[in-house]
Amino acid sequence: MVKVIIAEKLLKANEEIAAVNRRLLEGKGVVMVNLIGGPGAGKTTLLEKTLPLLTDKFCVAVIEGDIYTTYDAERIAKTGVEVVQINTHGACHLDAKMIGDALNQLPLDELDLIIIENVGNLVCPAEFDLGDDYKITISSVTEGMDKPAKYPLAFREAYGVVITKTDLLPYTVFNLGSYVEELFKINGNLKIFPVSALKDEGIEDWSQLIGRMIWRKRRNLTVI
Amino acid sequence: MVKVIIAEKLLKANEEIAAVNRRLLEGKGVVMVNLIGGPGAGKTTLLEKTLPLLTDKFCVAVIEGDIYTTYDAERIAKTGVEVVQINTHGACHLDAKMIGDALNQLPLDELDLIIIENVGNLVCPAEFDLGDDYKITISSVTEGMDKPAKYPLAFREAYGVVITKTDLLPYTVFNLGSYVEELFKINGNLKIFPVSALKDEGIEDWSQLIGRMIWRKRRNLTVI
Repeated sequence: MVKVIIAEKLLKANEEIAAVNRRLLEGKGVVMVNLIGGPGAGKTTLLEKTLPLLTDKFCVAVIEGDIYTTYDAERIAKTGVEVVQINTHGACHLDAKMIGDALNQLPLDELDLIIIENVGNLVCPAEFDLGDDYKITISSVTEGMDKPAKYPLAFREAYGVVITKTDLLPYTVFNLGSYVEELFKINGNLKIFPVSALKDEGIEDWSQLIGRMIWRKRRNLTVI
Repeated sequence: MVKVIIAEKLLKANEEIAAVNRRLLEGKGVVMVNLIGGPGAGKTTLLEKTLPLLTDKFCVAVIEGDIYTTYDAERIAKTGVEVVQINTHGACHLDAKMIGDALNQLPLDELDLIIIENVGNLVCPAEFDLGDDYKITISSVTEGMDKPAKYPLAFREAYGVVITKTDLLPYTVFNLGSYVEELFKINGNLKIFPVSALKDEGIEDWSQLIGRMIWRKRRNLTVI
Protein backbone atom coordinates (compact mmCIF):
# COMPACT_ATOMS: atom_id res chain seq x y z
CA MET A 1 0.00 0.00 0.00
CA VAL A 2 2.83 2.37 0.97
CA LYS A 3 4.51 1.31 -2.27
CA VAL A 4 1.43 2.31 -4.30
CA ILE A 5 1.08 5.71 -2.60
CA ILE A 6 4.76 6.51 -3.17
CA ALA A 7 4.48 5.45 -6.82
CA GLU A 8 1.43 7.69 -7.27
CA LYS A 9 3.23 10.63 -5.67
CA LEU A 10 6.27 10.12 -7.90
CA LEU A 11 4.11 9.94 -11.02
CA LYS A 12 2.20 13.09 -9.99
CA ALA A 13 5.42 15.02 -9.32
CA ASN A 14 6.70 13.80 -12.69
CA GLU A 15 3.56 15.03 -14.46
CA GLU A 16 3.96 18.49 -12.98
CA ILE A 17 7.54 18.79 -14.21
CA ALA A 18 6.51 17.36 -17.61
CA ALA A 19 3.92 20.16 -17.89
CA VAL A 20 6.66 22.73 -17.18
CA ASN A 21 8.86 21.18 -19.91
CA ARG A 22 5.92 21.21 -22.33
CA ARG A 23 5.11 24.89 -21.67
CA LEU A 24 8.77 25.85 -22.08
CA LEU A 25 9.01 24.14 -25.48
CA GLU A 26 5.60 25.42 -26.55
CA GLY A 27 6.84 28.97 -25.96
CA LYS A 28 9.95 28.32 -28.03
CA GLY A 29 8.12 26.48 -30.83
CA VAL A 30 10.27 23.38 -30.39
CA VAL A 31 8.84 19.91 -31.13
CA MET A 32 9.96 17.12 -28.77
CA VAL A 33 9.71 13.45 -29.77
CA ASN A 34 10.21 10.59 -27.28
CA LEU A 35 11.49 7.31 -28.79
CA ILE A 36 10.60 4.24 -26.71
CA GLY A 37 11.68 0.66 -27.39
CA GLY A 38 13.29 -2.42 -25.85
CA PRO A 39 17.04 -3.11 -25.84
CA GLY A 40 18.26 -3.62 -29.39
CA ALA A 41 15.02 -2.53 -31.07
CA GLY A 42 17.15 -0.30 -33.28
CA LYS A 43 16.50 3.16 -31.86
CA THR A 44 20.05 4.50 -32.28
CA THR A 45 20.51 3.06 -35.76
CA LEU A 46 17.17 4.55 -36.81
CA LEU A 47 18.33 7.94 -35.52
CA GLU A 48 21.67 7.65 -37.36
CA LYS A 49 19.76 7.17 -40.60
CA THR A 50 17.01 9.72 -39.90
CA LEU A 51 19.02 12.69 -38.67
CA PRO A 52 20.83 13.39 -41.99
CA LEU A 53 17.41 13.69 -43.69
CA LEU A 54 16.28 16.29 -41.14
CA THR A 55 19.34 18.41 -40.49
CA ASP A 56 19.37 20.07 -43.91
CA LYS A 57 15.94 21.60 -43.19
CA PHE A 58 15.73 21.81 -39.41
CA CYS A 59 17.87 22.52 -36.38
CA VAL A 60 17.86 19.30 -34.35
CA ALA A 61 19.23 18.15 -30.97
CA VAL A 62 19.14 14.69 -29.38
CA ILE A 63 18.83 13.75 -25.70
CA GLU A 64 20.32 10.29 -25.14
CA GLY A 65 19.11 8.24 -22.18
CA ASP A 66 21.30 5.38 -21.03
CA ILE A 67 21.83 3.57 -17.79
CA TYR A 68 25.61 3.93 -17.75
CA THR A 69 27.43 4.30 -21.07
CA THR A 70 27.82 7.12 -23.60
CA TYR A 71 27.99 4.70 -26.57
CA ASP A 72 24.81 5.89 -28.25
CA ALA A 73 25.57 9.58 -27.66
CA GLU A 74 28.96 9.12 -29.34
CA ARG A 75 27.30 7.47 -32.35
CA ILE A 76 24.73 10.27 -32.62
CA ALA A 77 27.33 13.04 -32.18
CA LYS A 78 29.00 11.78 -35.39
CA THR A 79 25.91 12.88 -37.36
CA GLY A 80 26.75 16.46 -36.36
CA VAL A 81 23.73 17.23 -34.16
CA GLU A 82 24.03 18.49 -30.60
CA VAL A 83 23.67 15.65 -28.06
CA VAL A 84 22.98 15.80 -24.34
CA GLN A 85 23.71 12.54 -22.52
CA ILE A 86 21.64 11.50 -19.51
CA ASN A 87 23.01 8.57 -17.51
CA THR A 88 20.34 7.21 -15.19
CA HIS A 89 22.85 5.16 -13.08
CA GLY A 90 20.65 2.11 -12.86
CA ALA A 91 17.20 3.70 -13.28
CA CYS A 92 15.12 2.01 -15.95
CA HIS A 93 13.62 5.07 -17.63
CA LEU A 94 14.01 8.82 -18.13
CA ASP A 95 11.83 11.17 -16.10
CA ALA A 96 10.65 14.75 -16.64
CA LYS A 97 13.19 16.21 -14.18
CA MET A 98 16.10 14.66 -16.12
CA ILE A 99 14.68 16.08 -19.35
CA GLY A 100 14.18 19.51 -17.72
CA ASP A 101 17.87 19.53 -16.74
CA ALA A 102 18.85 18.51 -20.28
CA LEU A 103 16.69 21.25 -21.82
CA ASN A 104 18.64 23.81 -19.77
CA GLN A 105 21.76 22.75 -21.64
CA LEU A 106 20.28 23.20 -25.11
CA PRO A 107 20.00 26.39 -27.24
CA LEU A 108 16.18 26.23 -27.36
CA ASP A 109 15.83 29.52 -29.27
CA GLU A 110 17.66 28.01 -32.20
CA LEU A 111 16.06 24.55 -32.23
CA ASP A 112 13.14 23.14 -34.24
CA LEU A 113 13.25 19.62 -32.89
CA ILE A 114 14.50 17.58 -29.94
CA ILE A 115 14.49 13.80 -30.21
CA ILE A 116 14.79 11.85 -26.96
CA GLU A 117 16.14 8.31 -27.13
CA ASN A 118 14.76 6.74 -23.96
CA VAL A 119 16.46 3.91 -22.00
CA GLY A 120 16.12 0.55 -23.80
CA ASN A 121 12.99 -0.75 -22.06
CA LEU A 122 9.45 -1.33 -23.33
CA VAL A 123 7.84 -1.18 -19.87
CA CYS A 124 8.83 1.70 -17.59
CA PRO A 125 9.45 4.57 -20.08
CA ALA A 126 5.82 4.34 -21.24
CA GLU A 127 4.62 5.39 -17.78
CA PHE A 128 6.61 8.61 -17.52
CA ASP A 129 5.51 11.71 -19.43
CA LEU A 130 8.58 13.79 -20.28
CA GLY A 131 6.74 16.82 -21.63
CA ASP A 132 7.13 15.54 -25.19
CA ASP A 133 4.69 16.23 -28.02
CA TYR A 134 4.83 12.75 -29.51
CA LYS A 135 5.75 9.31 -28.23
CA ILE A 136 7.03 6.96 -30.91
CA THR A 137 7.41 3.25 -30.15
CA ILE A 138 10.13 1.30 -31.94
CA SER A 139 9.59 -2.43 -32.32
CA SER A 140 11.71 -4.79 -34.43
CA VAL A 141 10.37 -7.69 -36.49
CA THR A 142 12.77 -10.04 -34.65
CA GLU A 143 11.03 -9.29 -31.34
CA GLY A 144 7.98 -11.21 -32.56
CA MET A 145 4.30 -10.54 -33.10
CA ASP A 146 3.06 -10.48 -29.50
CA LYS A 147 4.73 -7.32 -28.22
CA PRO A 148 1.72 -4.95 -28.61
CA ALA A 149 -0.45 -7.36 -26.59
CA LYS A 150 2.22 -7.94 -23.95
CA TYR A 151 3.36 -4.32 -23.54
CA PRO A 152 0.12 -2.47 -24.38
CA LEU A 153 0.92 0.85 -22.68
CA ALA A 154 3.90 1.57 -24.93
CA PHE A 155 1.69 1.09 -28.01
CA ARG A 156 -1.52 2.66 -26.68
CA GLU A 157 0.22 5.90 -25.69
CA ALA A 158 2.15 6.15 -28.96
CA TYR A 159 1.50 8.56 -31.80
CA GLY A 160 3.38 6.30 -34.16
CA VAL A 161 5.16 2.95 -34.36
CA VAL A 162 8.32 2.31 -36.35
CA ILE A 163 8.68 -1.38 -37.22
CA THR A 164 12.43 -1.88 -37.64
CA LYS A 165 14.66 -4.55 -39.27
CA THR A 166 12.19 -5.38 -42.06
CA ASP A 167 15.18 -6.73 -44.05
CA LEU A 168 14.97 -9.76 -41.71
CA LEU A 169 11.32 -10.49 -42.62
CA PRO A 170 12.24 -13.32 -45.04
CA TYR A 171 14.10 -15.13 -42.23
CA THR A 172 11.53 -14.81 -39.44
CA VAL A 173 7.96 -15.96 -38.79
CA PHE A 174 6.82 -12.34 -38.51
CA ASN A 175 3.73 -11.45 -40.57
CA LEU A 176 3.78 -7.71 -41.24
CA GLY A 177 0.12 -7.48 -42.34
CA SER A 178 -1.23 -9.22 -39.24
CA TYR A 179 1.07 -7.16 -37.03
CA VAL A 180 -0.24 -3.89 -38.45
CA GLU A 181 -3.83 -5.12 -37.92
CA GLU A 182 -2.91 -5.94 -34.32
CA LEU A 183 -1.52 -2.44 -33.83
CA PHE A 184 -4.67 -0.81 -35.20
CA LYS A 185 -6.77 -2.84 -32.75
CA ILE A 186 -4.87 -1.23 -29.87
CA ASN A 187 -4.83 2.26 -31.35
CA GLY A 188 -6.69 2.98 -34.58
CA ASN A 189 -4.94 6.33 -35.13
CA LEU A 190 -1.36 5.04 -35.10
CA LYS A 191 1.01 6.18 -37.84
CA ILE A 192 2.92 3.06 -38.79
CA PHE A 193 6.28 2.96 -40.56
CA PRO A 194 8.00 -0.31 -41.50
CA VAL A 195 11.71 0.48 -42.02
CA SER A 196 14.99 -1.21 -42.75
CA ALA A 197 17.93 0.94 -41.66
CA LEU A 198 20.29 -1.59 -43.24
CA LYS A 199 18.66 -1.27 -46.68
CA ASP A 200 17.61 2.38 -46.26
CA GLU A 201 13.97 1.49 -46.80
CA GLY A 202 11.12 3.49 -45.24
CA ILE A 203 13.44 6.01 -43.59
CA GLU A 204 12.33 8.88 -45.81
CA ASP A 205 8.59 8.35 -45.12
CA TRP A 206 9.27 8.24 -41.40
CA SER A 207 11.46 11.34 -41.46
CA GLN A 208 8.72 13.18 -43.39
CA LEU A 209 6.36 12.48 -40.50
CA ILE A 210 8.76 14.35 -38.22
CA GLY A 211 8.93 17.16 -40.75
CA ARG A 212 5.12 17.45 -40.66
CA MET A 213 5.21 17.59 -36.84
CA ILE A 214 7.52 20.61 -37.07
CA TRP A 215 5.47 22.40 -39.75
CA ARG A 216 2.31 21.82 -37.71
CA LYS A 217 3.82 23.49 -34.66
CA ARG A 218 5.11 26.41 -36.75
CA ARG A 219 1.64 26.95 -38.20
CA ASN A 220 0.10 26.97 -34.71
CA LEU A 221 2.66 29.52 -33.59
CA THR A 222 1.80 31.82 -36.52
CA VAL A 223 -1.93 31.60 -35.81
CA ILE A 224 -1.35 32.45 -32.14
CA MET B 1 16.80 11.25 -1.29
CA VAL B 2 13.45 9.88 -0.02
CA LYS B 3 13.28 7.97 -3.30
CA VAL B 4 16.67 6.35 -2.62
CA ILE B 5 15.78 5.36 0.96
CA ILE B 6 12.48 3.81 -0.18
CA ALA B 7 14.26 1.92 -2.97
CA GLU B 8 16.82 0.58 -0.48
CA LYS B 9 14.08 -0.53 1.91
CA LEU B 10 12.20 -2.29 -0.89
CA LEU B 11 15.35 -4.09 -2.05
CA LYS B 12 16.18 -5.14 1.52
CA ALA B 13 12.64 -6.47 2.11
CA ASN B 14 12.91 -8.31 -1.21
CA GLU B 15 16.23 -9.90 -0.19
CA GLU B 16 14.73 -11.21 3.04
CA ILE B 17 11.87 -12.90 1.20
CA ALA B 18 14.30 -14.23 -1.44
CA ALA B 19 16.28 -15.87 1.38
CA VAL B 20 13.09 -17.55 2.63
CA ASN B 21 12.35 -18.86 -0.89
CA ARG B 22 15.92 -20.13 -1.19
CA ARG B 23 15.80 -21.99 2.13
CA LEU B 24 12.45 -23.54 1.23
CA LEU B 25 13.77 -24.88 -2.07
CA GLU B 26 17.07 -25.94 -0.51
CA GLY B 27 15.12 -28.11 1.92
CA LYS B 28 13.16 -29.69 -0.91
CA GLY B 29 16.19 -30.17 -3.19
CA VAL B 30 14.58 -28.13 -5.98
CA VAL B 31 16.75 -26.09 -8.37
CA MET B 32 15.33 -22.71 -9.41
CA VAL B 33 16.55 -20.91 -12.56
CA ASN B 34 15.64 -17.29 -13.35
CA LEU B 35 15.58 -16.39 -17.08
CA ILE B 36 16.15 -12.68 -17.74
CA GLY B 37 16.03 -10.95 -21.12
CA GLY B 38 14.51 -8.01 -23.03
CA PRO B 39 11.19 -8.20 -24.91
CA GLY B 40 11.46 -10.63 -27.81
CA ALA B 41 14.88 -12.01 -26.82
CA GLY B 42 13.38 -15.47 -27.30
CA LYS B 43 12.84 -16.66 -23.72
CA THR B 44 9.53 -18.46 -24.32
CA THR B 45 10.66 -20.07 -27.57
CA LEU B 46 13.84 -21.28 -25.86
CA LEU B 47 11.74 -22.83 -23.10
CA GLU B 48 9.41 -24.50 -25.62
CA LYS B 49 12.45 -26.19 -27.16
CA THR B 50 14.26 -26.94 -23.89
CA LEU B 51 11.45 -28.40 -21.77
CA PRO B 52 10.91 -31.56 -23.88
CA LEU B 53 14.62 -32.42 -23.40
CA LEU B 54 14.27 -32.13 -19.60
CA THR B 55 10.87 -33.60 -18.82
CA ASP B 56 11.84 -37.20 -19.63
CA LYS B 57 14.45 -37.12 -16.84
CA PHE B 58 13.21 -34.51 -14.41
CA CYS B 59 10.02 -33.15 -12.92
CA VAL B 60 9.81 -29.51 -14.04
CA ALA B 61 7.51 -26.53 -13.41
CA VAL B 62 7.57 -23.06 -14.94
CA ILE B 63 6.66 -19.72 -13.36
CA GLU B 64 5.66 -17.24 -16.08
CA GLY B 65 6.03 -13.52 -15.37
CA ASP B 66 4.10 -11.15 -17.57
CA ILE B 67 2.71 -7.68 -17.17
CA TYR B 68 -0.81 -8.53 -18.28
CA THR B 69 -1.30 -11.46 -20.65
CA THR B 70 -1.21 -15.26 -20.24
CA TYR B 71 0.12 -15.79 -23.79
CA ASP B 72 3.44 -17.28 -22.73
CA ALA B 73 1.91 -19.46 -20.01
CA GLU B 74 -0.48 -20.93 -22.59
CA ARG B 75 2.44 -21.71 -24.92
CA ILE B 76 4.40 -23.36 -22.11
CA ALA B 77 1.39 -25.35 -20.83
CA LYS B 78 1.27 -27.07 -24.23
CA THR B 79 4.64 -28.71 -23.45
CA GLY B 80 2.89 -30.55 -20.59
CA VAL B 81 4.72 -28.98 -17.63
CA GLU B 82 2.93 -27.31 -14.75
CA VAL B 83 2.79 -23.52 -15.16
CA VAL B 84 2.02 -20.81 -12.63
CA GLN B 85 1.24 -17.42 -14.18
CA ILE B 86 2.18 -14.21 -12.41
CA ASN B 87 0.68 -11.03 -13.86
CA THR B 88 2.48 -8.00 -12.48
CA HIS B 89 -0.23 -5.53 -13.65
CA GLY B 90 2.20 -2.95 -14.89
CA ALA B 91 5.23 -3.74 -12.73
CA CYS B 92 8.42 -4.18 -14.72
CA HIS B 93 9.90 -7.21 -12.94
CA LEU B 94 9.09 -10.13 -10.67
CA ASP B 95 9.94 -9.88 -6.99
CA ALA B 96 10.61 -12.47 -4.29
CA LYS B 97 7.13 -12.10 -2.74
CA MET B 98 5.44 -12.94 -6.06
CA ILE B 99 7.68 -16.00 -6.40
CA GLY B 100 6.98 -17.04 -2.79
CA ASP B 101 3.24 -16.97 -3.58
CA ALA B 102 3.80 -19.00 -6.75
CA LEU B 103 5.89 -21.60 -4.86
CA ASN B 104 2.91 -22.17 -2.55
CA GLN B 105 0.93 -23.33 -5.58
CA LEU B 106 3.51 -25.87 -6.73
CA PRO B 107 4.02 -29.50 -5.58
CA LEU B 108 7.56 -28.85 -4.33
CA ASP B 109 8.04 -32.36 -2.94
CA GLU B 110 7.72 -33.78 -6.43
CA LEU B 111 9.76 -31.21 -8.36
CA ASP B 112 13.41 -31.22 -9.45
CA LEU B 113 13.42 -27.91 -11.25
CA ILE B 114 11.53 -24.62 -11.46
CA ILE B 115 12.27 -22.28 -14.34
CA ILE B 116 11.13 -18.67 -13.97
CA GLU B 117 10.57 -16.64 -17.11
CA ASN B 118 10.91 -13.08 -15.87
CA VAL B 119 9.11 -10.04 -17.40
CA GLY B 120 10.66 -9.01 -20.74
CA ASN B 121 13.08 -6.38 -19.48
CA LEU B 122 16.87 -6.31 -19.34
CA VAL B 123 17.05 -3.65 -16.60
CA CYS B 124 14.82 -4.11 -13.55
CA PRO B 125 14.69 -7.93 -13.19
CA ALA B 126 18.48 -8.01 -12.69
CA GLU B 127 18.11 -6.00 -9.46
CA PHE B 128 15.66 -8.31 -7.72
CA ASP B 129 16.83 -11.58 -6.21
CA LEU B 130 14.00 -14.11 -6.35
CA GLY B 131 15.68 -16.81 -4.27
CA ASP B 132 16.84 -18.58 -7.42
CA ASP B 133 20.01 -20.68 -7.67
CA TYR B 134 21.02 -19.46 -11.11
CA LYS B 135 20.29 -16.37 -13.18
CA ILE B 136 20.53 -16.94 -16.92
CA THR B 137 20.51 -13.96 -19.28
CA ILE B 138 19.01 -14.39 -22.74
CA SER B 139 20.28 -12.06 -25.46
CA SER B 140 19.53 -12.35 -29.17
CA VAL B 141 22.01 -11.66 -31.96
CA THR B 142 19.53 -9.16 -33.47
CA GLU B 143 19.77 -6.97 -30.35
CA GLY B 144 23.33 -6.05 -31.31
CA MET B 145 26.77 -6.27 -29.77
CA ASP B 146 26.55 -3.51 -27.16
CA LYS B 147 24.01 -5.00 -24.75
CA PRO B 148 26.52 -6.37 -22.16
CA ALA B 149 28.16 -2.93 -21.90
CA LYS B 150 24.85 -1.08 -21.77
CA TYR B 151 23.03 -3.41 -19.35
CA PRO B 152 25.99 -4.72 -17.31
CA LEU B 153 24.08 -5.88 -14.22
CA ALA B 154 22.06 -8.48 -16.14
CA PHE B 155 25.31 -10.00 -17.45
CA ARG B 156 27.48 -9.54 -14.35
CA GLU B 157 24.99 -11.32 -12.08
CA ALA B 158 24.38 -14.15 -14.55
CA TYR B 159 25.64 -17.73 -14.22
CA GLY B 160 25.17 -18.22 -17.95
CA VAL B 161 24.19 -16.41 -21.14
CA VAL B 162 22.15 -17.95 -23.92
CA ILE B 163 22.76 -16.16 -27.23
CA THR B 164 19.57 -16.75 -29.23
CA LYS B 165 18.59 -16.50 -32.92
CA THR B 166 22.02 -17.53 -34.25
CA ASP B 167 20.26 -18.56 -37.50
CA LEU B 168 20.08 -14.80 -38.21
CA LEU B 169 23.88 -14.34 -37.92
CA PRO B 170 24.40 -14.32 -41.72
CA TYR B 171 21.98 -11.41 -42.07
CA THR B 172 23.22 -9.18 -39.24
CA VAL B 173 26.43 -7.34 -38.38
CA PHE B 174 26.76 -9.38 -35.17
CA ASN B 175 30.20 -10.94 -34.59
CA LEU B 176 29.79 -13.96 -32.32
CA GLY B 177 33.50 -14.28 -31.46
CA SER B 178 33.87 -10.66 -30.38
CA TYR B 179 30.61 -10.85 -28.46
CA VAL B 180 31.80 -13.86 -26.45
CA GLU B 181 35.07 -12.03 -25.70
CA GLU B 182 33.05 -9.03 -24.50
CA LEU B 183 30.99 -11.28 -22.22
CA PHE B 184 34.12 -12.83 -20.69
CA LYS B 185 35.45 -9.35 -19.94
CA ILE B 186 32.37 -8.68 -17.79
CA ASN B 187 32.31 -12.09 -16.15
CA GLY B 188 35.08 -14.60 -16.84
CA ASN B 189 33.13 -17.55 -15.39
CA LEU B 190 30.08 -17.27 -17.63
CA LYS B 191 28.72 -20.40 -19.30
CA ILE B 192 27.87 -19.31 -22.83
CA PHE B 193 25.46 -21.08 -25.18
CA PRO B 194 24.78 -19.84 -28.72
CA VAL B 195 21.46 -21.37 -29.83
CA SER B 196 19.01 -21.32 -32.69
CA ALA B 197 15.56 -22.48 -31.59
CA LEU B 198 14.43 -22.30 -35.22
CA LYS B 199 17.14 -24.72 -36.39
CA ASP B 200 17.32 -26.70 -33.13
CA GLU B 201 21.00 -25.86 -32.73
CA GLY B 202 22.67 -25.61 -29.33
CA ILE B 203 19.52 -26.52 -27.41
CA GLU B 204 20.88 -29.86 -26.22
CA ASP B 205 24.12 -28.37 -24.82
CA TRP B 206 22.14 -25.75 -22.96
CA SER B 207 19.64 -28.24 -21.56
CA GLN B 208 22.54 -30.40 -20.35
CA LEU B 209 23.75 -27.44 -18.29
CA ILE B 210 20.39 -27.45 -16.50
CA GLY B 211 20.70 -31.20 -16.02
CA ARG B 212 24.08 -30.68 -14.34
CA MET B 213 22.56 -28.05 -12.03
CA ILE B 214 20.04 -30.62 -10.84
CA TRP B 215 22.61 -33.42 -10.36
CA ARG B 216 24.82 -31.03 -8.41
CA LYS B 217 22.02 -30.20 -5.98
CA ARG B 218 21.14 -33.88 -5.58
CA ARG B 219 24.79 -34.69 -4.76
CA ASN B 220 24.85 -31.90 -2.14
CA LEU B 221 21.71 -33.26 -0.58
CA THR B 222 23.23 -36.74 -0.36
CA VAL B 223 26.42 -35.41 1.24
CA ILE B 224 24.39 -33.48 3.83
